[in-house]
Amino acid sequence: MKLGEGVEQAIHSVLLLAGLPVDGVLPASALAEYFGVSSSYLLKHLQALAGAGLLLSVPGPKGGYRLAREPAHISLLEIVLAIEGPEPAFRCSEIRQRGPSPIAQHFHKAPCGVTVAMLRAEKAYRAELEKISIAALSVDPRSALGAALKSRSCEFLETHQRRTLPRA
Amino acid sequence: MKLGEGVEQAIHSVLLLAGLPVDGVLPASALAEYFGVSSSYLLKHLQALAGAGLLLSVPGPKGGYRLAREPAHISLLEIVLAIEGPEPAFRCSEIRQRGPSPIAQHFHKAPCGVTVAMLRAEKAYRAELEKISIAALSVDPRSALGAALKSRSCEFLETHQRRTLPRA
Repeated sequence: MKLGEGVEQAIHSVLLLAGLPVDGVLPASALAEYFGVSSSYLLKHLQALAGAGLLLSVPGPKGGYRLAREPAHISLLEIVLAIEGPEPAFRCSEIRQRGPSPIAQHFHKAPCGVTVAMLRAEKAYRAELEKISIAALSVDPRSALGAALKSRSCEFLETHQRRTLPRA
Repeated sequence: MKLGEGVEQAIHSVLLLAGLPVDGVLPASALAEYFGVSSSYLLKHLQALAGAGLLLSVPGPKGGYRLAREPAHISLLEIVLAIEGPEPAFRCSEIRQRGPSPIAQHFHKAPCGVTVAMLRAEKAYRAELEKISIAALSVDPRSALGAALKSRSCEFLETHQRRTLPRA
């Protein structure tokens, strides 16, 4: 079982975007620079996050991405599903129906016990991810780590963000 | 997130092998025939299950596979890890350390909060899979479905199994 690298990139992107002011956006190229990753690859993930309603994409030369919701209302589960797709990790190919002398078709109306057990475990996985919001993952800026992270990201955001409203 | 097809094949193989008599073994080719899947592909998974100590491989022209333990002592988790490998689905590439002006190295001694949260969810997933044994997945032969399954598998096992001890 493997999650794509995109999941890590997407979660950290959302975390960074959570530090923007209300009218700020960040272009994909800046996010890619911040994380030292491929811009085209990251763009695909940002588009997936926007498609899932987690980010807003502001078009145009002054455009970029921002959160579509408060960080407290974006869960890790939503980010994982946006990047990996909603399908369960276990895909039942109805192997029980293959091979010689299969049992009568009507027995297969109920799902296979193996599938039921595998999906129950995935439900537990998803329930854990659903509990964790982006707000909960943000490091307390009063801690030494939080202060260092905030200083790094603030400086970067200050240089790279674009404002969509005229400054006061 | 995706599990390989091998997981479904491996679980159903272990379930079928649970129906063998104590001295019976089943060759990989028979298992492949029963499930209508590629023999070489299934063999790879059976070898992985044997490598993980879940199956015993009896060599020779009368050889084949049997369970290495009671079905009650083989969990879904062990089968999944045997096929998919023990690594977590989420792999932290320490994206937080990349890019321009990273924060001081000593902050990275503690694992990233994203990784902690992702691994906690995987722990819940694995805990659920650990609870389910092959014995628990076996359908009660007193039920209509169980009787049909038992009749199908018994007939097949009777024809294809090999006995490693001389018959009485």
